[in-house]
Amino acid sequence: MKFISNVFVVAFVVLTFSTEGQNKVYDTSDSLVVRSIFDEALLRGQSYNQLNYLCKVIGHRITGSQQADDAVEWAQQEVIRYNVSSVSKQSVIANHWVRGDKEWVAISEDVDLLLNACALGGSVGTDGPLQAQVVEVSGMDELSRFKEGDLEGKIVFLNEPMDRSKINTFHAYGACVAQRYAGASEASKYGAVAVLVRSMTTLTDIHPHTGSMGYREGVKKIPAAAISTQDADILHGYIEDMGAATVTMNLNCYTNNSKTYTHNLIAEIKGSENPEQVIVFGAHIDSWDKGEGAHDDGAGVVQCMEVLRLFKEVGIKPKNTIRMVLYMNEENGNKGGKTYASRAKQNGENHICAIETDRGGFSPRGFSIDGREDQIANIAEWTELLEPYGLHYFKKGYGGVDIGPLKSEENRVNNNLMLLGLYPDSQRYFDYHHSETDVFENVNQRELELGGASMASMVYLIDKYWDKFSQ
Amino acid sequence: MKFISNVFVVAFVVLTFSTEGQNKVYDTSDSLVVRSIFDEALLRGQSYNQLNYLCKVIGHRITGSQQADDAVEWAQQEVIRYNVSSVSKQSVIANHWVRGDKEWVAISEDVDLLLNACALGGSVGTDGPLQAQVVEVSGMDELSRFKEGDLEGKIVFLNEPMDRSKINTFHAYGACVAQRYAGASEASKYGAVAVLVRSMTTLTDIHPHTGSMGYREGVKKIPAAAISTQDADILHGYIEDMGAATVTMNLNCYTNNSKTYTHNLIAEIKGSENPEQVIVFGAHIDSWDKGEGAHDDGAGVVQCMEVLRLFKEVGIKPKNTIRMVLYMNEENGNKGGKTYASRAKQNGENHICAIETDRGGFSPRGFSIDGREDQIANIAEWTELLEPYGLHYFKKGYGGVDIGPLKSEENRVNNNLMLLGLYPDSQRYFDYHHSETDVFENVNQRELELGGASMASMVYLIDKYWDKFSQ
Repeated sequence: MKFISNVFVVAFVVLTFSTEGQNKVYDTSDSLVVRSIFDEALLRGQSYNQLNYLCKVIGHRITGSQQADDAVEWAQQEVIRYNVSSVSKQSVIANHWVRGDKEWVAISEDVDLLLNACALGGSVGTDGPLQAQVVEVSGMDELSRFKEGDLEGKIVFLNEPMDRSKINTFHAYGACVAQRYAGASEASKYGAVAVLVRSMTTLTDIHPHTGSMGYREGVKKIPAAAISTQDADILHGYIEDMGAATVTMNLNCYTNNSKTYTHNLIAEIKGSENPEQVIVFGAHIDSWDKGEGAHDDGAGVVQCMEVLRLFKEVGIKPKNTIRMVLYMNEENGNKGGKTYASRAKQNGENHICAIETDRGGFSPRGFSIDGREDQIANIAEWTELLEPYGLHYFKKGYGGVDIGPLKSEENRVNNNLMLLGLYPDSQRYFDYHHSETDVFENVNQRELELGGASMASMVYLIDKYWDKFSQ
Repeated sequence: MKFISNVFVVAFVVLTFSTEGQNKVYDTSDSLVVRSIFDEALLRGQSYNQLNYLCKVIGHRITGSQQADDAVEWAQQEVIRYNVSSVSKQSVIANHWVRGDKEWVAISEDVDLLLNACALGGSVGTDGPLQAQVVEVSGMDELSRFKEGDLEGKIVFLNEPMDRSKINTFHAYGACVAQRYAGASEASKYGAVAVLVRSMTTLTDIHPHTGSMGYREGVKKIPAAAISTQDADILHGYIEDMGAATVTMNLNCYTNNSKTYTHNLIAEIKGSENPEQVIVFGAHIDSWDKGEGAHDDGAGVVQCMEVLRLFKEVGIKPKNTIRMVLYMNEENGNKGGKTYASRAKQNGENHICAIETDRGGFSPRGFSIDGREDQIANIAEWTELLEPYGLHYFKKGYGGVDIGPLKSEENRVNNNLMLLGLYPDSQRYFDYHHSETDVFENVNQRELELGGASMASMVYLIDKYWDKFSQ
């Protein structure tokens, strides 16, 4: 495409009123504030450089690792510069899972054929090489049709691919991730000794994608590993051609007996009118031990830090307390989110809104909203204000793993609490998710910066119009 | 982000009627057809493999090169398989610009310091090394304030950066690309002997971005080269530190005296009801001679080929003739687009709509529409149907360089003619544009495929409801 000056026409500052002409949805000053937020983020943004540091100097950050603690300490030093009212670490006690020495998985009939594989997070080890014949199943449905003893001594290969025809890739993920999370215990019920799971990605490539798995109580714990989608296709073809396959797995992972004492990071700007009311926004600072946790969720971490910086630089004084939480342990236990919510309950803290960014540093398209219809409608009335920034999606949906516990029955303080999740374009997320390709180089600076500015704009608007969201 | 099954709720098949309850905007069958188009594109799409071939086997395709001709021949062989009514080449006569032997640009005071540079397309060469003192200007505004003779014997360095705060990067491009296109003639008026232009990208990196430039009649032609943004910053710093800089340029480019005889490719499916009415959709098959022309505009080429395949596989029989045109010479002359339009005029062909895809193979967000308000409103009424596929933007805007001539006064046959441009996310486009990084690896398969399916859906809907767009 070549020379095309003066051909696109867009008005960046949009003013409007609700169609009823009564409730003012937003005013001129909001248009100017949002413009200033985006200008600051795109012209002098810090998030990209911070992500570079987090990924390249600190690296991946699984709960219990030195890097995870280093990341919390680093983030604390960074946000102190943003004139926040307070910064503190909140103790979190979590399990400490360790991948251990070099792991491997191989087809081992005549000649060993190594597969690109890695243990799933939370898995037990194999206690030395474990060899067994493979039984392939198409997914959890087929697996559930076996009976006790049917899979005695076998390795079950769960090979359900993500459905590429789903436009939102999270839907494709949600539809088959049960094989990763619950496949081991289901197979163990029928006598299996281990499971291999097809990686959760829409690509066909050589990278195994790890992720959390859990064991059901009362069922024998068996080892679980992911293999790359290309290797899943190879193993499938091998079984088809040869009629059977024997696989050897050697996983050295384990869960430490002692608990890990680690931290969430909390930083806030006190509200000028209602300091006792809190708008919390956050991301998780832990990651898997593959790649650098760049999209998942380093991007979210630096976007949240940027929100604090943007409030300072643009000079926004919130009415309510706005609080950033960088949660520990989202990936394998969610102890950070749970701890934050239960402490908030103990302290009787009134959260009016919680926002999370944990879907990658891609071009933002809006927010999914876990709230009442009237609350969603109020947010959707900002569409004209926010669409010039690419934000058009304001619909009912999921908030996020870390903020979920705030709305649980046991923790909820305020029945008007809304949860929001930043909603970026999802097409590339599962290319990188939980694999060694989730690195800084695969994050685009502008897309990352737009996400931070979107978060800041939403925090600003909800803070200013908070009373529209209570009943 | 981890296990989140069953948390997003989206209805993929949406049925609706216009709010007036009179004009049916679309019906159930349209929802099903659009779903089938996207399923076919995402599950069995051919565009990604075709782009791989076009980029890696054929390579870049500047007008007049063997590769440009090979690409047309290859595309013809590909689309013959899609049961089209006819495929043919259309002769196009264009200028043939050649980059020539190795070019270089260096700061040459005490020690030579090579800059990452390349000639702009259309530039004359330097006729051996050309050394002169540099005068830096902030852009065309500053340049226009000089007087005749002020820049005698100087090399003018036009250093206006793209404005990163613009959300749509094409706006930032449009605002300063005049320095690339017209800077040489403007500088020549004041006596300059050559120009260096800051590359048109929002990144700071080492890649020079070429692009077209033109000479004003009656003004002496002087050589013009782009330098990378990083080198522009270096040169700027050098001048600031040292008070002056001398640069040597050695460009071996030239325009062939003889014209190039080359081709557009045209393939069509005859309409079942109104074969004499044409909906044309296209992209340009030529590219610059840097990188592989993957986003610009290999992506558009394979998306258009995919439209024909999708019509065949989904079994859509158009009422009007739908015609794919792969235009030659968009980058440096637009002779393909102009030739197509003037031949159409000669033949009295009635085009009811022209659609172009030439903004990169990124996640599609909608279409910009060069049409009447009532036509745009009709298209916008498909929003509910298309939003589940990420398409939300249907607004007044630019169609494209290649389809523009169809609507010019001299060529227009039908006053109802609408021009549409596919409107993908623009954040990453100028990272790659016209540089050696515009390669296959930087195109994402799903994003590319969604664009092809979006084009096919729009062609389908406009064909079915074509009579809503005439007055």
